[in-house]
Order: sequence, then C-alpha cells, then structure tokens
Amino acid sequence: MKLVTFSAGAGDRIGVADAGSGVVRDVSELLPAGAGVLDVVAGWDELGPVLTQQSAALPAVPLTSVRLRAPIPVPRRNVFCVGKNYREHVAEFGRSGYDTPSRSEDLPDKPIVFSKATTSVTGPFDDVLPHHGVTSELDYEGELAVIIGRGGRAISREDAFAHVWGYTIVNDVTARDLQRDHKQWLLGKSLDTHCPMGPYAVTADEIPDVAGLELETTVNGQTRQLAPVKDLIFDIPELIATLSAGITLLPGDIIATGTPAGVGIGFEPPQFLRSGDVVEVSITGLGRLRNRIA
Amino acid sequence: MKLVTFSAGAGDRIGVADAGSGVVRDVSELLPAGAGVLDVVAGWDELGPVLTQQSAALPAVPLTSVRLRAPIPVPRRNVFCVGKNYREHVAEFGRSGYDTPSRSEDLPDKPIVFSKATTSVTGPFDDVLPHHGVTSELDYEGELAVIIGRGGRAISREDAFAHVWGYTIVNDVTARDLQRDHKQWLLGKSLDTHCPMGPYAVTADEIPDVAGLELETTVNGQTRQLAPVKDLIFDIPELIATLSAGITLLPGDIIATGTPAGVGIGFEPPQFLRSGDVVEVSITGLGRLRNRIA
Repeated sequence: MKLVTFSAGAGDRIGVADAGSGVVRDVSELLPAGAGVLDVVAGWDELGPVLTQQSAALPAVPLTSVRLRAPIPVPRRNVFCVGKNYREHVAEFGRSGYDTPSRSEDLPDKPIVFSKATTSVTGPFDDVLPHHGVTSELDYEGELAVIIGRGGRAISREDAFAHVWGYTIVNDVTARDLQRDHKQWLLGKSLDTHCPMGPYAVTADEIPDVAGLELETTVNGQTRQLAPVKDLIFDIPELIATLSAGITLLPGDIIATGTPAGVGIGFEPPQFLRSGDVVEVSITGLGRLRNRIA
Repeated sequence: MKLVTFSAGAGDRIGVADAGSGVVRDVSELLPAGAGVLDVVAGWDELGPVLTQQSAALPAVPLTSVRLRAPIPVPRRNVFCVGKNYREHVAEFGRSGYDTPSRSEDLPDKPIVFSKATTSVTGPFDDVLPHHGVTSELDYEGELAVIIGRGGRAISREDAFAHVWGYTIVNDVTARDLQRDHKQWLLGKSLDTHCPMGPYAVTADEIPDVAGLELETTVNGQTRQLAPVKDLIFDIPELIATLSAGITLLPGDIIATGTPAGVGIGFEPPQFLRSGDVVEVSITGLGRLRNRIA
C-alpha cells in the first residue's frame, strides 16, 4: 500500500495511492479524526486491515489533482541519517576535502549517524529554498529511507525487518559549506526545505527484496547517481541494530540510509545546485521526487 | 515562574514550583485539558497571565512529595546541542584524543551543533542507565539549556532574547567510545536516559542576567565543573542567530549551550562514571539535577 498526505482546503488528508493508474483515494474518513500517517503507522495492526479492506470502495481522483505533502510532514523527531554508507561515495567525499578535518577515503568501520531537523522536511514536488546568504554550496543526496513500525530497543539484526513498517525516498539536501565549517553536520543538513520526502510511504510488503532496489538521481535530466541498495556498506538490519542498541526506536521514526556516489562535490570542480535546477530522485517501486531549486 | 511536570497516577500534571518554600501547586486545571509544558510555552501570551494571576490560590504540596519528570518530558524534536563552547573544555577535549580524527585544541570558529534524540530525556532525579555492553566510557556534561518561546527564522543577535522563553539545566551525558567511534556524535549523545533535564523550566524574567549564572557539576560530592556562563565562546544570541539563519526555530525548542572544563575525559587517566556514582548539576537560580548511575 502507498500512503500519501495531501493538502485540501484547511487541513491535511490521508490518501491511498494507486501509482499504476495514477489515482488517489481519500481515506481520512476511515481513520480516527485528525489522524496523520504517523498515527496510521503507530496503529497499523488495527488500521492497516481497515484501509486494505475499505479503501478501494472510496472515490478516486487523479494524483495530479492534489498537492502531495511529505507522507510524514512533521516527524515526531529529527530524521536519523547515515553518512558515508556507499563505498564509492566514501571515496568521492574523502577526495573532496569537505569531510574536514580529515581527507580520509577509508571506509567507516561503524555507521556514521547524524540527524536532520524536522523543519527541513518538505513535499515531494515542492521547491527547495536556496538560502542565499546562508549557503553557497548546495548539494543533493538521493537516499532510501526506512520507516519504523514497531518500536523497541536492542533490536537484533535477525528481528530488524519485523520493525520496518515501510519505505520512502528522501533527498538529503546538504549545504556543504555549513557541513564542513560547523564540523558536526546538523546545521549543514537541516535548512528549511532541505529534506524533500515521498511521494509515498510504501508498506514493506510491496518491497519483498529491498536490497534489489535501484536508486537514481538526476539533475536537469542528467543522471548523477545510479546505484543498487545492495551496495550499502551497513545494511538496513545493521543500521537498526546499531541505532536501537541504546536508543529506543519509535513508530514512525525515519532512517535515511545514506547516499551513493555522484553528488555535486564528487565532481572537479564541484557542481553545486543553482536556482532553477531540477533534482529528481527515484527508487524502484517507491516513485520519484522532483524538486526545483527556487 | 518555575514550571514543572510531575507524575500523578495515570498521567502527568503541570505545576508551578516555589523553590524557596519547597512547594508545588498543581495548575493543570487552569490549562486546556491534556496541556503539557510544551503547550504552555507555545501559548504563553495567553496562559502565562492566567498562571501568574491564579496559581497562588491553589493548594500547595511539598516538592518532595511528587515525582518530578523533565519539565518537557517529550520534546517536539531532538534537543539542539553545542559542542566545544567553553575555552578550557576545548583544550581538555583536544588533549583527550576523543575528538577524532583530529586532536585539535584550536577554538572552533563556528558553533559545533549536533542533537540528542528525544528518547534520551529523563527526569531531574531519575537514574541514568549505564548501557553496559553498549558503552564502557560514560561521561557527564553539565549545561545551561535555553527554551525557545516565540519561534522564527533569521533571528538577529539583537532580537534573540525576545525569542527565549526561559531556561533549564541539562546533563548532556555522553558515551565517549560511541562519540569517538561513530565520528558524528548523535549515537554517543542519545542513549536512553542520557539527557537528565530540569528540575524546572524557569521563565526568562527570573534570570535578568544569564551571563552572570554559574554552573557547578559534582560527582559523588566532588566538584568537577565550575564555570560562569559568561565564559561561553558563542553566547546565547550568537547560537540563536546561527541556528535560526536557515532553520525555523519552534516554541519549546531546547538548545543545550555546551559544557565547561572538568569532564571525565579531561583527567589522566579518564574518570568515567560507574554504577552507583551520583552526578549533580546546579546553576544559579535554576536548581539542581541529581542523578545516580544505575
């Protein structure tokens, strides 16, 4: 199932999308009043069957007729993110000089985890703000994101997928100058609108083999990143086990798993994003983000 | 005014504490149903005068008779934190070798910003979990924390204090091995119970000169950290201006401003916390945290 959040008049509505036929059904009336996708994920054992059984009977409207927001427009806390988690990207990042103070091209021996502030989340087709005067080195990072279903602490590798509710796409937009100059990455990763997300929150049952997915990022139609998820250095079970070893994961937590090679600072000279550029990130079965730099 | 959150039966109650006479008044009935301190901060223009005018008439019980939780037990997103923001602490951290990959004792030229996950927050007198098997290098960091009132983006230094609702104390408990080994600090900073907070959320009007406050941290009664807030390298207006340059700050956001010299890794050999140790952090006018390592 593909869940979406969309704007309609005063408030947000929850929809079930049929990507094949390009329609969405407003399922808000099947849910508790005011429930968002976060609530649906947290109450999935009860609400999932209701949506499965009853959504098809509701009227469908074209997906293009609604304004999609991020499926989880306001996460309950910062988005967990993983750095340097694809081999070739580690090399390009190391060469670039942006991973100060070291220029190491060594593979990390433990996952590098940081976060993006909740206010960075924006819709799958919304404009990304360039924040002129704050950054002049805007870059993209297409990523597969995991949405946690059942929370918990000390989740083993073996149990990890039982805690995955589903998946979505994230563009981990990065202000490279801030990332470098402030040493810890939160500021460079968290500017408003710098986390396009969506278009769907896709349940795990639609993705029987997540390692088989392929990610592509284009800028103005030119392919920049193209990699299979199986190239992750630390795979999804390892990330969940590492994070949850001492941190209780919560339903709806979002974990962006890292970006493959091909980001702007991988080029010589670096290819930073400019106003008017259009960045698209697509992943097999999860749809496509398309965001213009304002 | 000193606001507290305390447990009573099924749910949390909100109280106004009188630290001098050691009592607290349950003010929940003056607030919208289910409101927490976060809601009070967000609705302060309306709710502040109600509490000011009507709380004194309510019955008082001894503060020692209630179980205080963190004033904001579940922050709306990760706690913003600032690293290396006191001169002498920069030197001890640089010497320790934990700030890999560099051993730099240079002062940062921009604020180093990271976050603690919301689930790390615990009460002012609750036990801190040692997480044996996850970390063996547990350390303390006493810190002044700012609570944002009116949110906003691009807040100037000059306007910054108009956005401060008040203050509290945080112990930025740190797993030094995870902080070092995972490069980015989120994991080492975010283990469950590793953010004792409180005991009060103190309104800014009680603190006319925040730079004049003094922070003290003791371990088993022995003073380890003792510093005036005026020693901050990046002061509160600078932190608010830097954070909000590209990130919209929200009412209730918490910014831990950094820790002074005297942490466990500042000793040779390092003095890590052990089960049974008691860490206290006190700041002039803001009260005292007292947490035992379980």
